[in-house]
Amino acid sequence: MSTLHIDLNADLGETTAGNPVADDAAMLQLVSSANVATGFHAGDPHSIAGTLKAAAEAGVTVGAHVGYNDPAAFGRRFIDYDPAELADEVTYQIGALQALAQANGTRVAYVKPHGAMYNTIVHHEAQAHAVIDGIKAFGDLPVMLLPGGVAVDIAEKKGLTVIREAFADRNYNPDGTLVSRREANAVMGDEGDVVKRVLEVAETGSITAIDGSVLNVDAQSVCTHGDSPGAVQLLRGVVKELQARGIEIRSAI
Amino acid sequence: MSTLHIDLNADLGETTAGNPVADDAAMLQLVSSANVATGFHAGDPHSIAGTLKAAAEAGVTVGAHVGYNDPAAFGRRFIDYDPAELADEVTYQIGALQALAQANGTRVAYVKPHGAMYNTIVHHEAQAHAVIDGIKAFGDLPVMLLPGGVAVDIAEKKGLTVIREAFADRNYNPDGTLVSRREANAVMGDEGDVVKRVLEVAETGSITAIDGSVLNVDAQSVCTHGDSPGAVQLLRGVVKELQARGIEIRSAI
Amino acid sequence: MSTLHIDLNADLGETTAGNPVADDAAMLQLVSSANVATGFHAGDPHSIAGTLKAAAEAGVTVGAHVGYNDPAAFGRRFIDYDPAELADEVTYQIGALQALAQANGTRVAYVKPHGAMYNTIVHHEAQAHAVIDGIKAFGDLPVMLLPGGVAVDIAEKKGLTVIREAFADRNYNPDGTLVSRREANAVMGDEGDVVKRVLEVAETGSITAIDGSVLNVDAQSVCTHGDSPGAVQLLRGVVKELQARGIEIRSAI
Amino acid sequence: MSTLHIDLNADLGETTAGNPVADDAAMLQLVSSANVATGFHAGDPHSIAGTLKAAAEAGVTVGAHVGYNDPAAFGRRFIDYDPAELADEVTYQIGALQALAQANGTRVAYVKPHGAMYNTIVHHEAQAHAVIDGIKAFGDLPVMLLPGGVAVDIAEKKGLTVIREAFADRNYNPDGTLVSRREANAVMGDEGDVVKRVLEVAETGSITAIDGSVLNVDAQSVCTHGDSPGAVQLLRGVVKELQARGIEIRSAI
Repeated sequence: MSTLHIDLNADLGETTAGNPVADDAAMLQLVSSANVATGFHAGDPHSIAGTLKAAAEAGVTVGAHVGYNDPAAFGRRFIDYDPAELADEVTYQIGALQALAQANGTRVAYVKPHGAMYNTIVHHEAQAHAVIDGIKAFGDLPVMLLPGGVAVDIAEKKGLTVIREAFADRNYNPDGTLVSRREANAVMGDEGDVVKRVLEVAETGSITAIDGSVLNVDAQSVCTHGDSPGAVQLLRGVVKELQARGIEIRSAI
Repeated sequence: MSTLHIDLNADLGETTAGNPVADDAAMLQLVSSANVATGFHAGDPHSIAGTLKAAAEAGVTVGAHVGYNDPAAFGRRFIDYDPAELADEVTYQIGALQALAQANGTRVAYVKPHGAMYNTIVHHEAQAHAVIDGIKAFGDLPVMLLPGGVAVDIAEKKGLTVIREAFADRNYNPDGTLVSRREANAVMGDEGDVVKRVLEVAETGSITAIDGSVLNVDAQSVCTHGDSPGAVQLLRGVVKELQARGIEIRSAI
Repeated sequence: MSTLHIDLNADLGETTAGNPVADDAAMLQLVSSANVATGFHAGDPHSIAGTLKAAAEAGVTVGAHVGYNDPAAFGRRFIDYDPAELADEVTYQIGALQALAQANGTRVAYVKPHGAMYNTIVHHEAQAHAVIDGIKAFGDLPVMLLPGGVAVDIAEKKGLTVIREAFADRNYNPDGTLVSRREANAVMGDEGDVVKRVLEVAETGSITAIDGSVLNVDAQSVCTHGDSPGAVQLLRGVVKELQARGIEIRSAI
Repeated sequence: MSTLHIDLNADLGETTAGNPVADDAAMLQLVSSANVATGFHAGDPHSIAGTLKAAAEAGVTVGAHVGYNDPAAFGRRFIDYDPAELADEVTYQIGALQALAQANGTRVAYVKPHGAMYNTIVHHEAQAHAVIDGIKAFGDLPVMLLPGGVAVDIAEKKGLTVIREAFADRNYNPDGTLVSRREANAVMGDEGDVVKRVLEVAETGSITAIDGSVLNVDAQSVCTHGDSPGAVQLLRGVVKELQARGIEIRSAI
């Protein structure tokens, strides 16, 4: 009988101009997968290398957190890319991160699109094709995506393994979309709620929406945050609770 | 008996914001080695990929033309880098280019530092160590350098093959330095003079300085330029003359 | 009785990493208005300053060619800006150019949005408001726009003078849009056709579309190009012809 | 009899990619002068505009914190600029900040070079001339500098008012240089020591070095830091103590 298990992932390596966004060292003690910035939306080669080394030492699986080339806005706004240019940027980013990963005792094991790229390829077919093609040009790496979008279909048709992702601290609408950050109940700040979410994903791969309906999204990884001392503290509590219940925290790959 | 041969190299893939610096297609019919930009001093992933594909089709060997992260000045001014940061930037650039190269039917076969980085590591020990360490962190690739500098010594001590380079169209001082561009006789614009330079390097690895003294620099590659229609035209004449004399143009690797 | 006159404008100051896009010196002898880059889509302070000095010496009126902060793509792709961020970027760019203009004997006399920003604010109300607000935050400068878009209405409602612009070498559809560059007849390469276009705008402010229908767009300026030796040569012929006919080339302001 | 007074300045507006470096709102309640980033070493137009508006509301004098165009390293490493390019970059930055300042109810009242530029022009004559020329091309603004460097002499010879600056929390060597950050006693973390430093500058313009010798540097402004919650807290204590002693905190201009 296999143990119940779950992948916890977080965005790391996002230091910009010497200013770290998250406490990477603390987070690497808690998560099983690190989405490491590649220098496009954030990160510079040296700070990225430091995060990769720490991930290798902590035994945390590394993903390439590829993003739009828009550091001014942290990769968070839509850019109407030429698809061929976007594909080559994705390949470039994975290759750059892979070189730093190998130099620091690890390797790129999956790819997770960041920010506006992540959200755009849920519905934008040309960019979804471009991102998947850019990954395949590097190699057949698994790709971490929001369940239900066109990128999932395209990735699977083109032979990539998809890691479906749920959010630890966000409420979901009955149609599977996230409750907008403009709504008061967008984010769940309660440790108990986050534990419940992670347990549900670990046990069933499903997510319960705000109206109580169950979304069968087949999620294998849960996205967590470490961009404030409070967020790290909350995650520590969640991990302790999971361990107490015998849930193994391990990479989805 | 082996045929006389020489490597001709040129800087390619330096398109910036859609504006090409050289006629890459024309140059790839003439040279045996392409120093391809990596996106730091110039180039963007998509235009770089185009140059790599054309190099693969033309059978031209590809080198990673790593540079300072200073696109505003085309990598041409000294930056007082922290050596650890510089090393990681070099590794990052080679990895990024390698991913695009493999996706386009070729691979990075050597590394050539660009501009201010190239000139700085002739004398700056800390940066020379950093650049060589950054290459070795990727793999033991040959490195193309100016003969006589500290980078040559460090590279060879650390086990890298060094490709010593001469300039096709520059006059040399008796001490092995280039005649400054501030002098009237810095650049040789005559096709006959360039042919003579290439022949001397092919036959002896030496360079005759402006005072007639012979510099035994053991050069194996000659750097050519394609940044103007006139430069491409001159190179065409040189290549024709070399072919007429039975000198093979081939990679130094 | 007033002489017939027309404003000829061109995009200048777009040198990137030391590589000029157009022959600014030649163009400044031909046009009456220079849309000078501000360092966002192209240009760096020193090359911009050189163009401003040359414009001052040539008596050419200077406009701030404000663009998206996207040098990698030369400001040519849509970015989904937060409007407040876009407005502040516009103000920033005009101020930066104004300082360099004053230091070089001239001043910013109007604003022309560039590339994707120019095209977006024809239909995107939030960005159109942002661009106009960003101009007004600097001062009530005239703004050069495509006739018929929402930006024209917003600019006029907010009290800015609008300079409506026609393109010297582009064919127009009967609905006032440009024939797409994907069509064979998008660009007019014949000097006679360009002269006819400029004359029509000078005499009536109208443009004749490809089907012969007349668009009453009230244009006061004609956009010309200098991004190739051929383009400069064609413009020289046009200017000669206008002078022969006694049409004065002068700023619309 | 005039009240004893001192200028407290701090670096603000350094938000990068949405991540603030300091608590600008808190600092603007404590200092009399804000060195506001211009988008070169840090800051983007919209976050800069927010800091300028808050400075206007708090009645804090604004300086242009001009820096090298090196956001990757926060402007903290030497770049071997062509002086003419550096001068134009300085003019550009002041103009950009002035436009945003005027749009937000204030104006640029002085200039303070940042980071590596600040340190370089203490001894590098060509760059010192370039920075001063770049300021003068905008207008005769006062310039805040380290006492004793070549930039001070050049600025005064060229007719600019110099605001000499002392550091609130750094120990000085007897020769007037700062104790290196590599030494254990580089930084003073004790509130009492900082108060003593500020009082000495307010009363005499002098600084007592680590060996007890007194440096007559004629300082009029004291540089403070707000880049950590602890730093803001310490400064709050210092300000309270100054107020208790009746020392007025006001701009040096």
